[in-house]
Formats: sequence, structure tokens, C-alpha cells
Amino acid sequence: MPSFKVTVAYDGTGLVGWQRQASGVSVQGLLEHALAELDGRHVPVAGAGRTDAGVHALGQVASFSLDRDIDAATLVRALNAHLPETVRALTAEYVGTAFHARFDASRKSYQYRIWCGEALNPFERFYVWHVPVRLDPDAMDTAARQLEGSHDFAAFQTAGSEPETTERTVFSSRVSGVDDPDARGRLILYDVTGDGFLRHMVRAVAGTLVEIGRGRYASEWMTAVLESRDRARAGQNAPAQGLFLMRVEY
Amino acid sequence: MPSFKVTVAYDGTGLVGWQRQASGVSVQGLLEHALAELDGRHVPVAGAGRTDAGVHALGQVASFSLDRDIDAATLVRALNAHLPETVRALTAEYVGTAFHARFDASRKSYQYRIWCGEALNPFERFYVWHVPVRLDPDAMDTAARQLEGSHDFAAFQTAGSEPETTERTVFSSRVSGVDDPDARGRLILYDVTGDGFLRHMVRAVAGTLVEIGRGRYASEWMTAVLESRDRARAGQNAPAQGLFLMRVEY
Repeated sequence: MPSFKVTVAYDGTGLVGWQRQASGVSVQGLLEHALAELDGRHVPVAGAGRTDAGVHALGQVASFSLDRDIDAATLVRALNAHLPETVRALTAEYVGTAFHARFDASRKSYQYRIWCGEALNPFERFYVWHVPVRLDPDAMDTAARQLEGSHDFAAFQTAGSEPETTERTVFSSRVSGVDDPDARGRLILYDVTGDGFLRHMVRAVAGTLVEIGRGRYASEWMTAVLESRDRARAGQNAPAQGLFLMRVEY
Repeated sequence: MPSFKVTVAYDGTGLVGWQRQASGVSVQGLLEHALAELDGRHVPVAGAGRTDAGVHALGQVASFSLDRDIDAATLVRALNAHLPETVRALTAEYVGTAFHARFDASRKSYQYRIWCGEALNPFERFYVWHVPVRLDPDAMDTAARQLEGSHDFAAFQTAGSEPETTERTVFSSRVSGVDDPDARGRLILYDVTGDGFLRHMVRAVAGTLVEIGRGRYASEWMTAVLESRDRARAGQNAPAQGLFLMRVEY
């Protein structure tokens, strides 16, 4: 009974997210459907990050065990033959049966993408949050770095899940800007790596960073929000479509 | 009667191309529809490049004259309010009434994008030609440079239009490769600038470059095809969806 770790990329537009739901198309559901075709039975699939509806991934990781033995390259090809073009298996490797994509993950990296420019670049329309005012990426970067380290991130958590602890370690939290002269705008990228994230945490941080970037608050406000542990003080949750799960490490 | 030069970006997926057709949605038709709303009459719009169905643009240029006087920034906003999200006016400026987007263009730049990797990056699925074998970008670049200069490009023209001459000047013709480790593949970019292009010329060159990149022919084959002036010797026309009109200069 071979077990596999598979890296998956998907365009989350129109999907209900990673997790199977009562209705709508989920990445987990699509993978389980494809694996049922391959293995002739229901194959439960675990995912490293339960991305929300509309969130994208370049490096989601899924794990599962099959009855049938199959080599890794053939598995990638067979999965892609049964998946829609919006979801692609990128790599597969054998792992021990004890491996679990979520419980064994030690670091996850997300990127949040913001488009600044009066007109929204049509090629980015499903992959950014469009903020049509000038943002200051240096102020945003100064603020983002204040989240590095081990902290109680309760201020950036959406109620609804009840984790045992709201403490997380953020290894890196940085903002950079990329001018796109062809499309008359600037892409602002927020890259964050941590040992785990609370529900909507990256989106709440991105919303707070935009408040700082547009000059409504100084960079130090990030620390004040963090220390308050009060969700009401952080910015709005930035829209799902700007968020990408980039990488999961084990 | 003010005249305008407007830069336009569009995602060509699902469009019939720049030019109005008997049926289907065209960029010219969308702009004329938006301008009729603004100006209360039919406004004929000229475009620098008549991009085919499925071809994209980051820097198409359109020209037209209005009855109504309107400042350039307001024009951009008003156009975008009447255009779908797939088509965006980026900039507008006043020009003399004699200005014509096509006849006055002195240089046009196109980019052709190829994705090499077994699985197609889902975010590139409408914006590249997927070639799932290894390509040699150095051999492709050596071949591409052989097109620089003034030549008879008849070998790279699709019959159907009858231009007065098939001689064109190519100022720059280069290939570069960008590895994308996150998506397990490589983007190969063909960038070309010329004083004008024959029908399907960039796509025929891209098709020929891929034959060279996969090792079916040596780089010198490009010169042999060019000098033959025989369309049957060049590669297939690469698919429309990998082609971008990047810039038009005057």
C-alpha cells in the first residue's frame, strides 16, 4: 500500500477552496475523484493547508495511500489526465505510510498580491487585490517585519475555528514592490513564512498592511494591533483572490 | 473636435481579435461601443495592430476623434466604466487630428510566450503555448538573432493578405528563458521589435524557433528558411494564445 506526497498548483477562481463542501467544486474533491478513477475505490486525501474559496496555490501538498502500486511519474500524468486544467499535479514522491500532509508540515509560505494602479491589469484580474491608490511599500515592509518571531496572533484571527493556541512563529514577513511599466501599475507582494497560520491570518495582515501603505496609520501600528490581541483593531480581511499558498516544508 | 491616442491592454481569450467581425466580440467593437456611450454617436476607432482572435495586448494603441471635449484622465476612467474587465484603457493623450494609430506607427514589439514543463502551470493556461519537452533557449536565441535586419520575410507570412511588399525591418529578435521552480517549468520568451509584421509572422517564427529548440534543426536553419522565401519550409504557426502585442512606438 504505497503512500504519496504530491505537490499541487491550482487557480482557485470558482472553487470552494481546498476542502470538500456540501456543494461546489473543491480541490480535495477533484483529487479524490481522480484517485477513485485510478485506484478503483475512495481514497481519502489530506492537504497541508485548507485554503479558502478563491485562494490559489502554487505549492499545496496532498498526501494519500493507494492500493495499486504506481511509479511517481506515472501518478502525476494519470492525475493530470483526470483533473481540470485549473488544477495540476506538479510532482509526486513515495513517503512512509505515517506521513500526513498537514500534521507533518513544519513551515508554510504564502504570498499576498496587491495591484496598485488606476486601471487593473486585465491579466491580474483574478490574482490580486486591486487597490487603486498609491501605497508605500517601504512603510508596509517596516510594518510586516514587526510580525517576525513567536507571538500571539489573536488580533489577526477570524472567529469560527477554535485552535488550542493562537501563538504562532513567523520566520519571515516581508513586503516588496515590482513596477510594471507596460501595465501602468505596481504589484506589491507580501511574502510570509510561518510554522502555521490562524484562520484568515494572512488576509487580515494584508488588510492591515494596506491601511499602513495608504498612510492611514504609521508602521508601528502593526505592533500595537498585534499586542492588543483584538481582532477589531486590525484591518479588514483582504480578498481571497490575492492569496497564494506558495510552499510547504517538512 | 479633440483627437486621442489611447493605450489599451486586453486578455484576448474568447475575443475574435482587434477587428470588428460579423459576429463575436472584438476589441475595436468594444471601444466603439464605449465611445458611442460617451460621445452620443458612432466613433470610428483605428488600432495600431490588428491582433488575431485569442492574441493578447499589453500596449495596443487606438486613435479616434470625439465631438465632445473631455480631459485625458476622465476619458480613461469613462472608457473603463464602459468596458469589460478583460479590456482596460491604460493611458490617453491628446494628438493632432491627422494622427492615425496604424499608419503613424514606426515600431511594434511583440512577445511570444512558451511554457516548457510536463504539467502546464494553471495560471499560464491561456497565456502560453504549452510545449511539454525540453527546449534549448540558447539555440533558439542564436536562430532568432538571424532575423535582425531588413529582409524579405515571405517565408513567415500566411497567405490571405496581399501586402505591397514582404520586406520588413526587424530591429531586435531575442529569446530568453526564465525558470519557475514553484511551478516546475520554464517560460521561454521570444521578444521581437520591427517596423511592421506580415500576417501571422511572429507566430510562424515562434513555430520555427520551437523546431530548433527541440533539436529537430540547427540554429542556421532559420537563415535557410528566411532565404527560401517559402512558407512551406517554416514551422507551424504557434497558437494565438501565446502572443502579446507589447508596445507601439511613434
